[in-house]
Amino acid sequence: MDIASIVGILAAFGLMLAAILIAPGSSLAAFYDAPSLMVVIGGSIAAAMISFPLKNFLGVGGVAKNVFFNKTANVSSLIETIVSLAETAHRDGLLALESRIDEIDNKFICLGIQMAVDGTRPEVIEDIMRTEIDAVATRHKDGKSVIDQMGRFAPAFGMIGTLMGLIIMLGNMEDTSSIGSGMAVALITTLYGAIVSNAIFLPFAEKLGFLNKQELLSMEIIVRGIMAIQAGDNPRVIEQKLNTFIPPKARAGAQEAA
Amino acid sequence: MDIASIVGILAAFGLMLAAILIAPGSSLAAFYDAPSLMVVIGGSIAAAMISFPLKNFLGVGGVAKNVFFNKTANVSSLIETIVSLAETAHRDGLLALESRIDEIDNKFICLGIQMAVDGTRPEVIEDIMRTEIDAVATRHKDGKSVIDQMGRFAPAFGMIGTLMGLIIMLGNMEDTSSIGSGMAVALITTLYGAIVSNAIFLPFAEKLGFLNKQELLSMEIIVRGIMAIQAGDNPRVIEQKLNTFIPPKARAGAQEAA
Amino acid sequence: MDIASIVGILAAFGLMLAAILIAPGSSLAAFYDAPSLMVVIGGSIAAAMISFPLKNFLGVGGVAKNVFFNKTANVSSLIETIVSLAETAHRDGLLALESRIDEIDNKFICLGIQMAVDGTRPEVIEDIMRTEIDAVATRHKDGKSVIDQMGRFAPAFGMIGTLMGLIIMLGNMEDTSSIGSGMAVALITTLYGAIVSNAIFLPFAEKLGFLNKQELLSMEIIVRGIMAIQAGDNPRVIEQKLNTFIPPKARAGAQEAA
Amino acid sequence: MDIASIVGILAAFGLMLAAILIAPGSSLAAFYDAPSLMVVIGGSIAAAMISFPLKNFLGVGGVAKNVFFNKTANVSSLIETIVSLAETAHRDGLLALESRIDEIDNKFICLGIQMAVDGTRPEVIEDIMRTEIDAVATRHKDGKSVIDQMGRFAPAFGMIGTLMGLIIMLGNMEDTSSIGSGMAVALITTLYGAIVSNAIFLPFAEKLGFLNKQELLSMEIIVRGIMAIQAGDNPRVIEQKLNTFIPPKARAGAQEAA
Amino acid sequence: MDIASIVGILAAFGLMLAAILIAPGSSLAAFYDAPSLMVVIGGSIAAAMISFPLKNFLGVGGVAKNVFFNKTANVSSLIETIVSLAETAHRDGLLALESRIDEIDNKFICLGIQMAVDGTRPEVIEDIMRTEIDAVATRHKDGKSVIDQMGRFAPAFGMIGTLMGLIIMLGNMEDTSSIGSGMAVALITTLYGAIVSNAIFLPFAEKLGFLNKQELLSMEIIVRGIMAIQAGDNPRVIEQKLNTFIPPKARAGAQEAA
Repeated sequence: MDIASIVGILAAFGLMLAAILIAPGSSLAAFYDAPSLMVVIGGSIAAAMISFPLKNFLGVGGVAKNVFFNKTANVSSLIETIVSLAETAHRDGLLALESRIDEIDNKFICLGIQMAVDGTRPEVIEDIMRTEIDAVATRHKDGKSVIDQMGRFAPAFGMIGTLMGLIIMLGNMEDTSSIGSGMAVALITTLYGAIVSNAIFLPFAEKLGFLNKQELLSMEIIVRGIMAIQAGDNPRVIEQKLNTFIPPKARAGAQEAA
Repeated sequence: MDIASIVGILAAFGLMLAAILIAPGSSLAAFYDAPSLMVVIGGSIAAAMISFPLKNFLGVGGVAKNVFFNKTANVSSLIETIVSLAETAHRDGLLALESRIDEIDNKFICLGIQMAVDGTRPEVIEDIMRTEIDAVATRHKDGKSVIDQMGRFAPAFGMIGTLMGLIIMLGNMEDTSSIGSGMAVALITTLYGAIVSNAIFLPFAEKLGFLNKQELLSMEIIVRGIMAIQAGDNPRVIEQKLNTFIPPKARAGAQEAA
Repeated sequence: MDIASIVGILAAFGLMLAAILIAPGSSLAAFYDAPSLMVVIGGSIAAAMISFPLKNFLGVGGVAKNVFFNKTANVSSLIETIVSLAETAHRDGLLALESRIDEIDNKFICLGIQMAVDGTRPEVIEDIMRTEIDAVATRHKDGKSVIDQMGRFAPAFGMIGTLMGLIIMLGNMEDTSSIGSGMAVALITTLYGAIVSNAIFLPFAEKLGFLNKQELLSMEIIVRGIMAIQAGDNPRVIEQKLNTFIPPKARAGAQEAA
Repeated sequence: MDIASIVGILAAFGLMLAAILIAPGSSLAAFYDAPSLMVVIGGSIAAAMISFPLKNFLGVGGVAKNVFFNKTANVSSLIETIVSLAETAHRDGLLALESRIDEIDNKFICLGIQMAVDGTRPEVIEDIMRTEIDAVATRHKDGKSVIDQMGRFAPAFGMIGTLMGLIIMLGNMEDTSSIGSGMAVALITTLYGAIVSNAIFLPFAEKLGFLNKQELLSMEIIVRGIMAIQAGDNPRVIEQKLNTFIPPKARAGAQEAA
Repeated sequence: MDIASIVGILAAFGLMLAAILIAPGSSLAAFYDAPSLMVVIGGSIAAAMISFPLKNFLGVGGVAKNVFFNKTANVSSLIETIVSLAETAHRDGLLALESRIDEIDNKFICLGIQMAVDGTRPEVIEDIMRTEIDAVATRHKDGKSVIDQMGRFAPAFGMIGTLMGLIIMLGNMEDTSSIGSGMAVALITTLYGAIVSNAIFLPFAEKLGFLNKQELLSMEIIVRGIMAIQAGDNPRVIEQKLNTFIPPKARAGAQEAA
């Protein structure tokens, strides 16, 4: 559960709400227009549906969920786990790792350890693990790009809605008293597009990109760890190598714990 | 037949239509202007004709068709096919694959198997297959870039049309009653440009890019599979290697089937 | 002579002309303003002169000419030529190629054949030919980038002209009757910038980029062909390798012809 | 303490202040609007909170501090240090470096020297040092990207605030006397967004990117120096090699000092 | 002294001046506004000061000077020099080059020749020369990026100034007669920003990028030449290799001269 993203969304919408309510002579009702919502939200979704195969489009919910419910791997404890596996392998041999597979809940470590225990050749292990990393990177990028596109389409459909509103308004200029309200309604669509894009889609896409990068880093650490364990490296050397991936502060803690 | 893209297009245009029809005091007729269509659609097409050799420009229809009628290779069944070929080769030798070429309808697999059966050297096979992949990637990118450009030119010609309309309107300001309608007509061109670009060209280009990536992934899987078959790898190892290309869920199914 | 680009330019300007003439109350004269032309065309040219050494700037005419008068190498017939050279070399030895150099009008093939006949070492041939490819790529990119820049400067100077027009207009507001025409004149500069950029410079740059890519592809095919001929590869294998560079359809034709 | 950045910020805000105060009929009060500040600053911060994990978001203060308080490594004196270490190693052997570790306050040099003294194999030293460089690059990029995003979100929220202000104003058009001030207030939000982005966030991000590049260059010099020291290269050759990293002028000074 | 850039600047400003003077009812005075200049020029400079360390910021003058006073190395005569050095080395041995160092005024050639004469190993020579190339590329990119940034900040501060002007104008709407002139003054800042960016900063940055590319090409030619001389290659082969870097026309001249 990622508190920052939830607080961020609440803050963004709370601030805009507050700014509307403070303003003299404004009312929330003036900021609600169903057809505008339809054009912006519906249009962005429709454009995303055209842009992607159905399966990828439908997967966007599961992808977006990660923004809030991500279990960012704790890199320090990941390194501790690998070092502890390296100590077992160093003390009792590679085969002793088999008994420890059950206690590890990171599937990528298990995959590597299993292959090492099975005596798979190092090149094959590295090849399979790196292909897996590439595949994960591709899948994540695909998921992110649906949200990215929606963040790009939303302001465009906001502008489309505003142009539609302006054209309708300009066609009814006899009634000059309604020009102001007609224009206000027209602008709402642009406002919706800007809000949806800048307070939801773009930050979500940014966060997913960030999380992906972090997961790929964890996987990279695991590959290097497994390769070093299989090569029979000294656990202390492995720890030193892997620790370079994390900032010095986090490192100290890891060393104490190890 | 890709249902998502068709539903997406219908939804995008349906929503805009609905928003127009709901709006009080608006009529569909106010949103039709032939010269605007001419400038936006004609201009984008003309600019694309200048930008590309005739052959590539004319090929855009065939390329756009792929947005709707693509047969995305089912990667799982592709892997099954390769694993089954690997089993044949493992059991009865490489030459036994010749009899199975007819049952395979993926031409790229056939090309690879044929070369392997003919005893072509592995480096040559890989070289030819990778050149083919590069060539397919280039052809796809060329096709996509025509649509990409039209998506970029459409809003520009929308703005050009609007500027033309404004200049005409500003030259006839004596009749103040027509200012509103003149401006409405001027804005229609920008609206057309934005719609054509965001509901058609850009999503189409995005989808083509996505499909291309997927086809290249299939070809990559085939190359690795053929190389592994020729090297005489164990079918189980081949399956494990290729499965890393697909998400764990899809993988389970493939393993059951194999 | 590239018909698509000429038709495209005629179509783009024809459509805009037609849209102006159809519009009620408009006249072509309203769309002509000498100072606006001066600012947009002159400004873009001046900015390009600042941006590039004189020689490159002056070369832009020759570069732009290629948009219309390009002899896109026919890749199929190029491959046929190379395969036929390979057959000669296979039958009568490398030295027999010397007598055929005169009949070839592609200078890059001649360069390669000459070096092969002279007994230059393969690494040296490949090194020299690849350096030539890089040099051609760089020269083309330089030529393209002058037009690219003009496509980027034109709308900017369009906006500069419009701002100048608006400032003049706003300084003469006493005469309210001239506001409309003043604003119309101001907008003409933006219109010019948009047209010049989107109907000329940007499509030209796009096309040059496309032609460059195609020439580099031809050169790549030639390098691979020459290297294969020198290595004494079988003409059929060379044909198969080079054919992967072209789409299957074009390929069939080439094979029949060969 | 980086004087340029402080002078720059004071100059940017001072100039804008002066321009306001000089203008006839303007007052500073007209440029203050609390809800606008709330939407722009609050919105950018909220969007950044959604975009990044809490830890990275909270680290932005420490990152921004570097804009002002950076101790850009003096590359010349860095090279002097390495050359002096090389002289010690050349004269008294690698182990003699151990006694000099304490006098060096660059931790990355210490790390390398310690490993060299410990007799770690060159490949391992280079691997560990390069991993550290990559990790530093990643951490810096992460820090910079928070500020980058805020520079991108600020103008967007500026536009959102202006749209909100315009909609409120257009809903209260009966009172025509307030239109001007309503519009002024609406525009303030766009102004805030532009200022915050162009005078703070974007220059900060640019500077951080620049500082990062410089730190990575220092680290690269150190890696090459340590590797050369361990390989027993002549101190003069090491000096010549490392000096190529700095401009000829700075170089002269370094050579005199050495 | 680069005539194109000077003519370009004079032309750009001359054209804009002419357009203003031709326009009926306009005066140059209407286009001068000190606070606007202050905000645009001052603001861009201030933002650049925040973005870069003081040293880099102050170096911008020297960098900008190169736009006008660059001595673009004549690549043809550079190749002639290298070929003539190769002939000396071929005839009288590598050591004979020492006597020719004084007559060469390109310091990078001297560096290479000196190292070759000193008997430095080829890998070391190439390593040192390539590091120098990388370092020159980095220094040039740093210099260019200051001007690049100013080209990006100028329009932003133009917009900031215009928003400030609009807000002041909207706060003084009682006096409707001054609305026009208030708005004109407001727009001047945007005009300044657009001119400064598109007629000065962006073309300057483009030109610097172009010059840098050309200098790096010269350095690349020198490295290849020196390496070939040291390897004892035949001067004719060296000439042929290096000539591939220049267009066929320039090449013919070089060959005659050689």
